[in-house]
Amino acid sequence: MVDITRQPGRLRPAPENFLSEEQVRAVAAGRRDFLRRSLLAAGATLTVPMAARASEGDSNILQNPEWTTTLGQPVATRPYGLPSKFESNVIRRESPGLARVGGASVSFTPLQSMFGIITPSGLHFERHHQGWHDIDPARHRLMVNGSDDSLLKKPKVYTMDDLMRLPSVSRIHFVECGANTGLEWGNVAVPTVQYTHGMLSCSEFSGVPLKVLLEDCGVDYKRGRYVLAEGADGSSMTRTIPMEMVENGEVMVAWGQNGEMLRPENGYPLRLVVPGVQGVSWVKWLRRIEVGDKPYATKDEAVHYIDLLPSGLHRQYSSIQECKSVIATPSGGQTLLAKGFYNVSGLAWSGRGKIKQVDVSADGGINWRTARLEGPVQNKALTRFNIDWVWDGKPAILQSRAIDETGYVQPTYGQLRAVRGTKSIYHNNAIQSWKIVESGEVSNVQVL
Amino acid sequence: MVDITRQPGRLRPAPENFLSEEQVRAVAAGRRDFLRRSLLAAGATLTVPMAARASEGDSNILQNPEWTTTLGQPVATRPYGLPSKFESNVIRRESPGLARVGGASVSFTPLQSMFGIITPSGLHFERHHQGWHDIDPARHRLMVNGSDDSLLKKPKVYTMDDLMRLPSVSRIHFVECGANTGLEWGNVAVPTVQYTHGMLSCSEFSGVPLKVLLEDCGVDYKRGRYVLAEGADGSSMTRTIPMEMVENGEVMVAWGQNGEMLRPENGYPLRLVVPGVQGVSWVKWLRRIEVGDKPYATKDEAVHYIDLLPSGLHRQYSSIQECKSVIATPSGGQTLLAKGFYNVSGLAWSGRGKIKQVDVSADGGINWRTARLEGPVQNKALTRFNIDWVWDGKPAILQSRAIDETGYVQPTYGQLRAVRGTKSIYHNNAIQSWKIVESGEVSNVQVL
Repeated sequence: MVDITRQPGRLRPAPENFLSEEQVRAVAAGRRDFLRRSLLAAGATLTVPMAARASEGDSNILQNPEWTTTLGQPVATRPYGLPSKFESNVIRRESPGLARVGGASVSFTPLQSMFGIITPSGLHFERHHQGWHDIDPARHRLMVNGSDDSLLKKPKVYTMDDLMRLPSVSRIHFVECGANTGLEWGNVAVPTVQYTHGMLSCSEFSGVPLKVLLEDCGVDYKRGRYVLAEGADGSSMTRTIPMEMVENGEVMVAWGQNGEMLRPENGYPLRLVVPGVQGVSWVKWLRRIEVGDKPYATKDEAVHYIDLLPSGLHRQYSSIQECKSVIATPSGGQTLLAKGFYNVSGLAWSGRGKIKQVDVSADGGINWRTARLEGPVQNKALTRFNIDWVWDGKPAILQSRAIDETGYVQPTYGQLRAVRGTKSIYHNNAIQSWKIVESGEVSNVQVL
Repeated sequence: MVDITRQPGRLRPAPENFLSEEQVRAVAAGRRDFLRRSLLAAGATLTVPMAARASEGDSNILQNPEWTTTLGQPVATRPYGLPSKFESNVIRRESPGLARVGGASVSFTPLQSMFGIITPSGLHFERHHQGWHDIDPARHRLMVNGSDDSLLKKPKVYTMDDLMRLPSVSRIHFVECGANTGLEWGNVAVPTVQYTHGMLSCSEFSGVPLKVLLEDCGVDYKRGRYVLAEGADGSSMTRTIPMEMVENGEVMVAWGQNGEMLRPENGYPLRLVVPGVQGVSWVKWLRRIEVGDKPYATKDEAVHYIDLLPSGLHRQYSSIQECKSVIATPSGGQTLLAKGFYNVSGLAWSGRGKIKQVDVSADGGINWRTARLEGPVQNKALTRFNIDWVWDGKPAILQSRAIDETGYVQPTYGQLRAVRGTKSIYHNNAIQSWKIVESGEVSNVQVL
């Protein structure tokens, strides 16, 4: 019997210990054999065909690299860590020339380089109207009032300390700018998925449900059917939120993003979270909530963020981001280096609830196969899909088409334009197509 | 009839447009009234009692702060964003004197400042044995071999490109060091939850299931019942993984952490993910996988990471992190500034599956109430719990107790020591107690 600790007595397995005494004995006796045979096996594998593309690492694979033979850096070298220097190309980008003023512009999330459904906070897209600030949380306030005294009986001004003591919730939600994919209305064919779909991110938001604050302030739900949300930045963004969304508990006054406080570019220390609704309503640097009995027709809902229809009329207050999907890789600007197996991967989302199904086509929408959805599928959050694909080297057009739990099917450009015409700027949720040619280059095309 | 766009014709609501024509008219007519009355209302609220603690922001609340009156910074000022400068205290920390060499040490996650279940990657805890490196992914390789040729017929060497083309999955899992809370065995009473429980983090990991690689290499599942995982850092960490865990598809060879590549401190570009199992088995900078027919009894499982039992024998290969929870706030080192309402918040987790229930006590374990669990509750991931509590200003002892889906109940120190004795270093999952005195100061105490 073997006692590795050199203490007297028999070694007895704990319930979760998967070794029997015999096995322990065998290991102790045979260990040197294992090591020797492992080294031989390692030598033998080197005659096995290696990856097609040789690189400088292969020729000296028997020599340990420097990270194996030297002492690395200590813990807490970086009290707040950063990505690898080899990932320096994975950044958010502004589209050059998109806007004249950098403070009233957009930076896009590099969806082609993302995995899963969580957007790293440092890569969350930005959309500002008068730039962003790093606001002092000790000086920031949230006022809650009514447009008249009967609609909200006990108006209050909250500090961050006041808010963060209240009962909080944490939920994973996507936020998409209403203008996401907007340039594709005009078939601009921007080159990469970062620019076609990158006004899209998904985080675990933490905060207090807005209804908790309204009830704390004595709201009259019967007559107070609209909420005005107002931001503290220079643009003082204001948007109307229908009270139905607040009453169901989904609207949050949030301070947390992926486990820590919001990022300054995303509204630190406080923003509104309006699940499923276009990003402009998710007012950043939130400073005021007003309860009213009529919609507010603010600048950013009366004359911006509206869609011009074929009839010549505008669609206003278009709130919900409809079911949508996109293949993130392979995507525009990438190149397939060889024929063979690829894991086609992308994202699907719906402002009306959960994604039910995603189908993928490799021939421009003639034949479809159903993709794997990564679970658990969550409400008004991104859903990751993956599907096996073997590229035979011939031209192909990859597409994804999502269906949400209401039964809504993501439309083609042909279907969408038939209803919306061609003069929209916002709310483009059409099926995205990526063309692959024989050289392996992938580009953005439109298929009706 | 009103047409805000000055186009001819009637404004007709789109399906999701919640305005009626009457409402649009009312808004257009009444808007100036609203603005005027809102400002008056804002003035009126300032006579409402404010938060107990005055601060410099209150006296000039009618003056707009500088972030409201100036142009902020443009988009993509930071292509990779960082937290607010006001959050500079939220960092991972090494415990001074814990280890003699910073490369063989720990840095702890500041759980007291976290929300939800996702750990921001920059705050993920570290545990290194010979420091960390930022490995060049183009030079990194993963070898998969068998301890003899019959156990794995087609050994291979994979590049990162090879691996990242394979079918991938994304799952949220906690990782906890086996030594987490270890110092509390000896009732050291380290002062804060960062130090008592901070070797704990949770991320969305993305990668390829290990079984896909093993099957790609022709594994013999009948005789190959153990996997050896080996890392590329100077310590060449090696651990045995039982094949049952690999066969069920849960073990992943991962490159993704919260939507982007792993962080260098957490194993970039490749690590093993072994859900529910202690962190040491999640080999970082993974370079080799070997299939064998006996356990390996490596240094880090034969003589380290073992528990000395009262009988004088050691418990080895203790793999599964048992059900555990902790209140993250209020917690040691914090101070309650006033009586009244608090949202008591914490985390629960189990290496055996999902958390079923968390109870909270305010009197050291005599009376318990069931807390709210944030959903969806996920398998072998952190679960966030919250419960309302009103502090009456008197001494109190806060505790949380988790139950997992197997029915296992988190033990008290008394219950745990009765089985494990007092000489353990690892696998401390006892109930944590936080004492609150009349001054509001919160400290770490042990209750048997």
